[in-house]
Amino acid sequence: MTETVLHSATKTAIIGFNQPFCVIGERINPTGRKKLAAEMMAGDFSTVTADALAQVAAGALVLDVNAGVTAVDPNLTEPPLLAKTIELVQSLVDVPLSIDSSVPAALAAGLAVAKGRPLVNSVTGEEDRLETILPLVKKYNVPVVAISNDETGISYDPDVRFAVAKKIVERAADHGIKAADIVIDPLVMPIGALNSAGAQVFRLVRRLREELKVNTTCGASNISFGIPNRRVMNAHFLSMAAAIGMTSAIMNPLHKEDMDAIRAANTLNGFDPDCMAWLRANRDPAAAGEGAGGRRRGRRGAGDAGAVARSE
Amino acid sequence: MTETVLHSATKTAIIGFNQPFCVIGERINPTGRKKLAAEMMAGDFSTVTADALAQVAAGALVLDVNAGVTAVDPNLTEPPLLAKTIELVQSLVDVPLSIDSSVPAALAAGLAVAKGRPLVNSVTGEEDRLETILPLVKKYNVPVVAISNDETGISYDPDVRFAVAKKIVERAADHGIKAADIVIDPLVMPIGALNSAGAQVFRLVRRLREELKVNTTCGASNISFGIPNRRVMNAHFLSMAAAIGMTSAIMNPLHKEDMDAIRAANTLNGFDPDCMAWLRANRDPAAAGEGAGGRRRGRRGAGDAGAVARSE
Repeated sequence: MTETVLHSATKTAIIGFNQPFCVIGERINPTGRKKLAAEMMAGDFSTVTADALAQVAAGALVLDVNAGVTAVDPNLTEPPLLAKTIELVQSLVDVPLSIDSSVPAALAAGLAVAKGRPLVNSVTGEEDRLETILPLVKKYNVPVVAISNDETGISYDPDVRFAVAKKIVERAADHGIKAADIVIDPLVMPIGALNSAGAQVFRLVRRLREELKVNTTCGASNISFGIPNRRVMNAHFLSMAAAIGMTSAIMNPLHKEDMDAIRAANTLNGFDPDCMAWLRANRDPAAAGEGAGGRRRGRRGAGDAGAVARSE
Repeated sequence: MTETVLHSATKTAIIGFNQPFCVIGERINPTGRKKLAAEMMAGDFSTVTADALAQVAAGALVLDVNAGVTAVDPNLTEPPLLAKTIELVQSLVDVPLSIDSSVPAALAAGLAVAKGRPLVNSVTGEEDRLETILPLVKKYNVPVVAISNDETGISYDPDVRFAVAKKIVERAADHGIKAADIVIDPLVMPIGALNSAGAQVFRLVRRLREELKVNTTCGASNISFGIPNRRVMNAHFLSMAAAIGMTSAIMNPLHKEDMDAIRAANTLNGFDPDCMAWLRANRDPAAAGEGAGGRRRGRRGAGDAGAVARSE
């Protein structure tokens, strides 16, 4: 069974086919967070600190760290800022990190200071990125998130995205990187823009798992971009993706709906022994009795649900 | 693609592989509802009336009707009461019905008065039930819910439950009933009693769909019997089952969490053109802007989610 193993100085996180869903906290990312970008540029890391502590407390198993504060000369600003942010986060929490940048020099600077075995986020199917980032991944012997787009952008055809993923896995093999160290992001498009976005991702996740034997991840909240009641849509997208076999997501653990979805999915997928995680997160004895649904098939023979439940 | 077609006097409901999830309203069922049982025995159908109207208003596509008011001589009391209840419900709403009884004489009485093409709920793998109910199903040319237990009760082994389902489908064929008219209930056990209950059902649903080509249903709320926060667990069980390929459920459409799950699953599975059903159910323009998640991958090339969303 495929396992992508991450380490911090003291902790291990495994993204795997037979593991609870791996929650990668997305919050430490100034992209689209103007206030955070301004703070980080000014050397104020109070929000980064708060986000690091809050996400781990909420159940994140890995923290994504991005320092893309500006589009203006990121090659100069991002490497030292990403390294500094990683060192700070490592001093605050003990979970493994995901080093997130589209600037190769920033990934290198991050890898130089990251402890343990971090995840690199990300490489794409673009030639220049493959040949710049894969050697870095090999040099540090770390796993990498691979996004299934290439020079032509993101294809609306899931078969093309699968082909890009396959190319990345094969190219990685040429560099001596095994498939278990590639976590494919099949790319989640907004359901409001592309009606088949959800069905596409579910089909891709199944193919990536069964045919390429790789772990998968995604920027989950993209699915609900532009539609109302995003929290509920995101939560069901996560549990449905987990049911299909997606093994991790870059998500917001501070959204209770999302974490409820992950806890429910872990329990329903059989990764929550004795429902202990569910019970810990839902300490409300009153709620246990809620609803008579459990009894509605009670007439249906000795093996009925009620009887099974009482046999606990 | 498998389709189980139901009719009322004026409406059609299809349970199918390429159809939105079929919500079968479970409320009109005195089993485990003492107050409702007492009302129905006393000839008071006010709750039945309210439940019929409310469930259809909430989005139920089919209504299950059960008149199991007492374990005392059900063969005498249930047939006339079920027929009366069905005639009342048919006078109130126009959706197809599911005639629900473990008493063959009650199913016969219900079929005699039901308009259109109702669903019969249910037969099991028990010999006496197979040979009593399948001829009735054939006589009226109606589809039937088949529960995968037999004389030995409900097996904890999903392969045994699959074998029972297969036996029922084969026996039905002997009676001239086609597989598309059999809706298998793989039986949902409480996750609190059996940790593998969810994984078992997901695996069974996939096998029933791929190997027997049959539609599936279940008493969804059984999954959360005895654990806290049942509404959230039930909702994710429903959306995850729909992601795996379950095509209907006998559920409570008055639980908003459950209907949110079904609407999200229909949208994510590609059965909600232009997200119209989702938008109708979530008329809150403010919510559309909620969260910056949709932008977090915004730096990733021309095809990024934000751009796709803006291209609407």
